[in-house]
Amino acid sequence: MTRICQRLGLAVLLAGSIAATAKADELNLMPWPSHIEQQAGALNLNRLPHVEVTGCEERVTSGLDRFNRAVALRTGMPFLNPDLKPDTATMFAIHCAAHGDKVQALEEDESYKLTVTAAGIDLSAPNPLGVLHGFQTLLQLMHNGPQGWEIPAVQIEDTPRFPWRGLMIDVSRHFMGIDVLKRNIDGMEAVKYNVLHLHLSDDEGFRVQSLKRPKLTEVASDGNFYTQEQVRDLVEYARARGIRVVPEFDVPGHSVSWLVAYPELASAPGVTKIVRSQYDELRPPFDPTNDGTYKLLDDVFGEMAKLFPDEYFHIGGDEVDGKYWDHNEKIQAWMKEHNIKDNHALQAYFNQKIQKIVNKHGKHMEGWDEIVASDLPKDILVQSWRGPKSIAQTAQMGFKTLLSAGYYLDLQYSAATHYAVDPLEGEAAALTPEQKKLIIGGEAAQWTEYVTSEILDNRIWPRAGAVAERLWSPESVTDVNSMYRRLAVLSDELQWVGLEHTTSSQRMLDRIAAGMPYELFNTLAVTVEPVKEYERETTQKYDTNMPLNHLVDADPPESNEARRINALATQAASNAEARAELRKWLVRWRDNDAKIEPYLATSELRTNLVPLSQQLAVLGTVGLQALDAIESGHALTADQQKQQNDSITAADVHHAQMLIVVVPAVKSLVAAEPVAH
Amino acid sequence: MTRICQRLGLAVLLAGSIAATAKADELNLMPWPSHIEQQAGALNLNRLPHVEVTGCEERVTSGLDRFNRAVALRTGMPFLNPDLKPDTATMFAIHCAAHGDKVQALEEDESYKLTVTAAGIDLSAPNPLGVLHGFQTLLQLMHNGPQGWEIPAVQIEDTPRFPWRGLMIDVSRHFMGIDVLKRNIDGMEAVKYNVLHLHLSDDEGFRVQSLKRPKLTEVASDGNFYTQEQVRDLVEYARARGIRVVPEFDVPGHSVSWLVAYPELASAPGVTKIVRSQYDELRPPFDPTNDGTYKLLDDVFGEMAKLFPDEYFHIGGDEVDGKYWDHNEKIQAWMKEHNIKDNHALQAYFNQKIQKIVNKHGKHMEGWDEIVASDLPKDILVQSWRGPKSIAQTAQMGFKTLLSAGYYLDLQYSAATHYAVDPLEGEAAALTPEQKKLIIGGEAAQWTEYVTSEILDNRIWPRAGAVAERLWSPESVTDVNSMYRRLAVLSDELQWVGLEHTTSSQRMLDRIAAGMPYELFNTLAVTVEPVKEYERETTQKYDTNMPLNHLVDADPPESNEARRINALATQAASNAEARAELRKWLVRWRDNDAKIEPYLATSELRTNLVPLSQQLAVLGTVGLQALDAIESGHALTADQQKQQNDSITAADVHHAQMLIVVVPAVKSLVAAEPVAH
Repeated sequence: MTRICQRLGLAVLLAGSIAATAKADELNLMPWPSHIEQQAGALNLNRLPHVEVTGCEERVTSGLDRFNRAVALRTGMPFLNPDLKPDTATMFAIHCAAHGDKVQALEEDESYKLTVTAAGIDLSAPNPLGVLHGFQTLLQLMHNGPQGWEIPAVQIEDTPRFPWRGLMIDVSRHFMGIDVLKRNIDGMEAVKYNVLHLHLSDDEGFRVQSLKRPKLTEVASDGNFYTQEQVRDLVEYARARGIRVVPEFDVPGHSVSWLVAYPELASAPGVTKIVRSQYDELRPPFDPTNDGTYKLLDDVFGEMAKLFPDEYFHIGGDEVDGKYWDHNEKIQAWMKEHNIKDNHALQAYFNQKIQKIVNKHGKHMEGWDEIVASDLPKDILVQSWRGPKSIAQTAQMGFKTLLSAGYYLDLQYSAATHYAVDPLEGEAAALTPEQKKLIIGGEAAQWTEYVTSEILDNRIWPRAGAVAERLWSPESVTDVNSMYRRLAVLSDELQWVGLEHTTSSQRMLDRIAAGMPYELFNTLAVTVEPVKEYERETTQKYDTNMPLNHLVDADPPESNEARRINALATQAASNAEARAELRKWLVRWRDNDAKIEPYLATSELRTNLVPLSQQLAVLGTVGLQALDAIESGHALTADQQKQQNDSITAADVHHAQMLIVVVPAVKSLVAAEPVAH
Repeated sequence: MTRICQRLGLAVLLAGSIAATAKADELNLMPWPSHIEQQAGALNLNRLPHVEVTGCEERVTSGLDRFNRAVALRTGMPFLNPDLKPDTATMFAIHCAAHGDKVQALEEDESYKLTVTAAGIDLSAPNPLGVLHGFQTLLQLMHNGPQGWEIPAVQIEDTPRFPWRGLMIDVSRHFMGIDVLKRNIDGMEAVKYNVLHLHLSDDEGFRVQSLKRPKLTEVASDGNFYTQEQVRDLVEYARARGIRVVPEFDVPGHSVSWLVAYPELASAPGVTKIVRSQYDELRPPFDPTNDGTYKLLDDVFGEMAKLFPDEYFHIGGDEVDGKYWDHNEKIQAWMKEHNIKDNHALQAYFNQKIQKIVNKHGKHMEGWDEIVASDLPKDILVQSWRGPKSIAQTAQMGFKTLLSAGYYLDLQYSAATHYAVDPLEGEAAALTPEQKKLIIGGEAAQWTEYVTSEILDNRIWPRAGAVAERLWSPESVTDVNSMYRRLAVLSDELQWVGLEHTTSSQRMLDRIAAGMPYELFNTLAVTVEPVKEYERETTQKYDTNMPLNHLVDADPPESNEARRINALATQAASNAEARAELRKWLVRWRDNDAKIEPYLATSELRTNLVPLSQQLAVLGTVGLQALDAIESGHALTADQQKQQNDSITAADVHHAQMLIVVVPAVKSLVAAEPVAH
């Protein structure tokens, strides 16, 4: 079945969305708007309508130009249509009630109203930001039906649930070039993210050129850094797309790169090189008792505060390893002298000083959970990697906070897993309305210990779309089937505008196959996924001397095929068509190992796939036995079932940092009732 | 058959290469080395050998690092192997006899000697450039066989036939980002190009930031330009890969962008905006009688001469439209006064002044054919777009020259077409040995009227590999089958390191299909190619308001499938297997139209494919009739043949700027003798 048929034919019911009609459920919008009503008819895009822009600034006119180009890219119609001048029969009226802030602010109204009829489009917003969001909604509404390209008649009133919808990218562990960031910003714009949080410094590297402290660039970056010109360009690029850029410089821990340049400010001696792997164990924090620390941070934060115009400035503050402070006699003596009783208090002391520096340079301080301390001013913002309990406590203390726990994309969970996480759930659900307001949103996070620029897109997209919807759409929008259907469309559309999540994954698999039959490798690849959470570290420590080009790196975090097969298997007892398709898969799994085996031994990239391939063959064999039993009408005996389940369990072992994710399908078959004859 | 089998199994005989043995013919080297001898055995890459570098500078050590990463990317082995320290059993000895020039020079020796045995690798060169080339040869030698990854034992003595092997990219018509240029430099390095010629200014835009004349950046670039920092970075990137960067600023014609900033220097009034399409007809050259012209060029060329360190500086000089000079009274009066008799003499006057400016800034002047004039000094260099006659004349006049005619990749000819062009053929073949020495090489050229950054790779690669071989390898290396076999391997390998010629072509086709069945579109796509030479202009003028996202843009210039099918059809009479495969194709062509037809009408990107699809169906039907006749043993009557040929001729019409390229296959079938029964 073609995607266009899916678009027009399937009517998956969407929970949520107050005014959503059955018809609106067909639309491929992500995030789903807060209010949408679909009417009869559509605006045909044979010709672009006459455009009239009122009250808007340059961001909207350049956004409109990009909109026209995006329309042209998909439809082939010209960017501009000078012939249309006299034709005011169809109108595209764009109206902004006011200009936006000079530096995009957290409080800005991002809502918009969009009406599409057969006669034209009306898009209005209090602010350019809403209009930019409206353009993206229009692009997603466009579909190619039997009448050609058209936009269905709709009325949308859309406003985000949370004002902070971020994506964090760690550019310290593995550096990401400007072009990589820009195409990810394009993806962010498509799903209405509004904050790009760059984790710019860590033990592994300091990634922005410093003119004030050039040593940081020279020795703390290993040559991979953004020039100030590149930063300004990036910030401008993001701003044009309604996205703020929040810089993070992680202190006092996670700061070995700084300390390579300034070893005298470290809490322990011996820092001579930036961290390149988990085997590098010397990772002291800054010495918070040394005045030079504050002088350096004042210099650099001052410089960076100018470079990054956003009102928030992220100082990290997480995971400070206290043992270095414990073992430093000078620090211990200083603590005694200043009546600072423990490391927690010492970090609080540090944060207070840092907060004043950040404030002096005109910014609100942002940091991870660990910065929370009651004596900090209420303008700080706390990003929570610890989760609901921590976020609730932070809000109770009166601090603004946002959720990242549950949105760590690098943990390789499914889109559904992230989609189920809500910033206002758990302990946060019990907060007062006032306290709840302090929970201003969330951030998807992509840490990059195991992620190069070749891998990044496939680790972020399309799953980040599900998080974007959670943060924008009404709480009630929770239908997972609908989400996956729309996510698949989004995934294609993002590829078409330049994201590389699918192509780079395929390229990497092709490189692994290295000219051997691609299909054999693909058969295996779609049945496995990278291990989840932090399991990879247990068998393969992060180490930049190891190339990241194995199947675990090539494969997307989530196999759409496997999800579909697992769902199909639950219908095996009742659905002959499902059984026929399952049989094809099972035969392929059973037979793939013998075919692929000769190719696996001859490359380091493939040898570790041997056990996975063998397990898959076992699962294919067991699944076929179970399917035969279902179709013969003779139930498996309890003994047979047990034997089969034992085989499945034996096959369900992780290898090569991957796991076979079609195990549930085979389990379903073993457990299924036979067909009545 | 898998590619690895092809690598090991096929023995295509290679003409040329004096010392080449039958075994060496299996190797996937491009360009083919000047001397190669393959021995028994191979170096197994289970572990990287111990490396010893002597006499080399930083370019080699960083090149070695990139080499290690490239090996790791393909094999999965670690970048560095610290365990290997004591293991000196296998050695990788790298030796440079001397350091390279501070600015890579035309005269530098690029040769290298490479010996691979089961015990190790010996790579030595007069110069770092040779070692860098040797690394690429080693990467191409690596293959993944039944024993794993290995490098066959070889002895290579390799030196380029020509010292100037360039690729020109026009970044004025469509701007190409730095990342696009960098990945193309990676491709150039792989096939040993040594000059990236950037066509930096034309009527459509001035693409380098000028600090001295910032108006050029502000009004002549439409916001798309390289900052000086980016240029320095790019030059450094290229230098590290043994590639010079030669800038071209085209004057006095092709310079509308300059004149938007300085209209008072134009030969005609009214220049107000940069050219965006062929419909913009006002394209005056500089006024060569205005002193301000030389002041401006002196300023900007001086600035650019510093920014681009190469010893050559390209001033274009082509296609000056004399009518503007004819119609300018002031210019006519000045010519009379200065006794300059015609436009040719006026341009010669201009070039003499420009040559002095270029010279003053420490450079040799380079230009297109039109700059040739006997009174210019002999240090200039002439790039020939006009071909053998022009190049021979230039050499006879004692000027250095290089060939670009025949290497215009934007004309969409096959790799074989470009491969057949030799700088020393035609009139040049009759030159004296001394004159021949003045022909220092050639340049592939990619003009970008119809090429965006999305399309660029697929227009350049892999065909540029064939031109690279022509310019590097001995004249006798001419076997087209061997070239295509090796080019296919190169194409995959370039994809694996980041070139996007195949993926972006597929992505564009997928976007055209927009969710409709991709296979139907692909069936059509592989049977057609973009029209050749300048035919596209005749039905679709270049216009940046037209999106470049139709099939003519997505499809590669050359269809490998079609070439294979056409070759197969010549064997139809004698080869039953060929007939069986051809039948499959013909049935598919015949039936595709009915299936794809419902999807074609609904998008501007597809409607113009209707006639092509219908023609393909006709060709399928005719081909099947012919195949039936062959197999039935009953020859077609002359009447039937005529009728079929008429059908073919009627179907062989260009549409949508494309042509069906499987016509020869069907013609072969119609002409084939029936099988004797």
